[in-house]
Amino acid sequence: MACWIDGRPDEPLPPTDRGLAYGDGLFETIAVRRGQPLLLERHLARLGEGCARLALPGDPASIRAELLAFSAALGEGVAKLLLTRGDGLRGYAAPQPPQSRRILLGSPPPRYPPGNAAQGVRLYPCRTRLAEQPLLAGLKHLNRLEQVLARAEWRDAEHAEGLMRDLSGRVIEGVFSNLFLVRDGVLLTADLCRCGVAGVMRAEILEQAERAGIALQVRDIDFAELLAADEVFLCNSLYGIWPVRRFEEHDWPVGTLTRKLQGSIRKLLDS
Amino acid sequence: MACWIDGRPDEPLPPTDRGLAYGDGLFETIAVRRGQPLLLERHLARLGEGCARLALPGDPASIRAELLAFSAALGEGVAKLLLTRGDGLRGYAAPQPPQSRRILLGSPPPRYPPGNAAQGVRLYPCRTRLAEQPLLAGLKHLNRLEQVLARAEWRDAEHAEGLMRDLSGRVIEGVFSNLFLVRDGVLLTADLCRCGVAGVMRAEILEQAERAGIALQVRDIDFAELLAADEVFLCNSLYGIWPVRRFEEHDWPVGTLTRKLQGSIRKLLDS
Repeated sequence: MACWIDGRPDEPLPPTDRGLAYGDGLFETIAVRRGQPLLLERHLARLGEGCARLALPGDPASIRAELLAFSAALGEGVAKLLLTRGDGLRGYAAPQPPQSRRILLGSPPPRYPPGNAAQGVRLYPCRTRLAEQPLLAGLKHLNRLEQVLARAEWRDAEHAEGLMRDLSGRVIEGVFSNLFLVRDGVLLTADLCRCGVAGVMRAEILEQAERAGIALQVRDIDFAELLAADEVFLCNSLYGIWPVRRFEEHDWPVGTLTRKLQGSIRKLLDS
Repeated sequence: MACWIDGRPDEPLPPTDRGLAYGDGLFETIAVRRGQPLLLERHLARLGEGCARLALPGDPASIRAELLAFSAALGEGVAKLLLTRGDGLRGYAAPQPPQSRRILLGSPPPRYPPGNAAQGVRLYPCRTRLAEQPLLAGLKHLNRLEQVLARAEWRDAEHAEGLMRDLSGRVIEGVFSNLFLVRDGVLLTADLCRCGVAGVMRAEILEQAERAGIALQVRDIDFAELLAADEVFLCNSLYGIWPVRRFEEHDWPVGTLTRKLQGSIRKLLDS
């Protein structure tokens, strides 16, 4: 497994890293095809927004250059970038002057069952609810115990993903995916102002839909709306789009809008 | 700085540790005096509860033995133990079979201004609110971005700690301390069923107060009750007890119950 720390291969990771101590940092999980990081600008934009909101210094030019070089060396697979707030031995106060550390990890292409994209998936009803924290909502930060707890709720291969709701019961996302509904021709996804991760594939789909003139709504979604949807699908930056076919006793068909978006996203991931 | 990983000094920390990836783990910050870890049983009990709630395997006998050996080697200072869910490259699913990793870090005794304990401290009014997440409430887990954001709100030396409230406005704790009030002879601290860290010093104070026949309440505390308190104090396992003298324009005297508890806790920390 390839690992670069601040651009240098095979550096040791200090056990005082604040990413370990407090989850004090951000990450991006980037698909790499033919030596190129896909959706790079979107990943960099989200990382930049996270840096601004957490007051985390990150040099965009170094990060971009490093991601390009790392991806070229990796060829095919996944580049995971962690950006932490450097070192600290004790105490929550940030180091002065501000620091950060870049950690890049490479891994082989993910192997999801081909049926997930082709026939659609079944969603597990997670009992773990997402807490509402507007200061962290939308960010792909390193505090992910809620996702760990949610993912531990099922082990069967029958469920490819789990549905996460917030503590008020709103429909938010999957454990490692964003969620979209289609109802009466309108594409709908949750507003992530209180919790959730604003995925780069979600952003890509929203932009593609807007360009295609598809009616869009980003707003709170209650549970009844999910069940009443005409189409439901999941997305993330590695697998693209998976139709959702089943949730508990509820079934949805794989809809035409889902297939249309899936086709254009697949082209992007295969590019 | 001393660092042991799974009992071995100077081992490298794998960059795939799930503590770094997701904050998937727990920690304890333990005062060490004359080669002995203080409040060891309380630290082990809290760690054990955290392991049970997060389904994190941790061998209590190894952890105890390691803490004793590490403290003996350290002599005076602070032993920080991190227990993470081992390694994972991608994906929230826990490794099977379950794993964990012990990381022990030593540091010198903390140097707080002596006036904090003697004359009391001023509390900063943190705007960062604690999210309500019953599944994680009370645990000293590695997802601590809220504390990082709260501690970044002030840099002056005038404020020794910050007051953290939950998103509903309840008074919960300090950024790195628990908070107690005294009102009409009753000792009061927040119920930590929705958020907050159940500190070992908080547990020690609750037990001492109970043994001494002091009236006790562990329940929700609203902001008006804080301002109306006769005495207010903070505690943690390293510094013991600090009286709170000032919060914004509000002043409290250092009360007799605060001084009484402070004396017995100081004896314990100096033992």
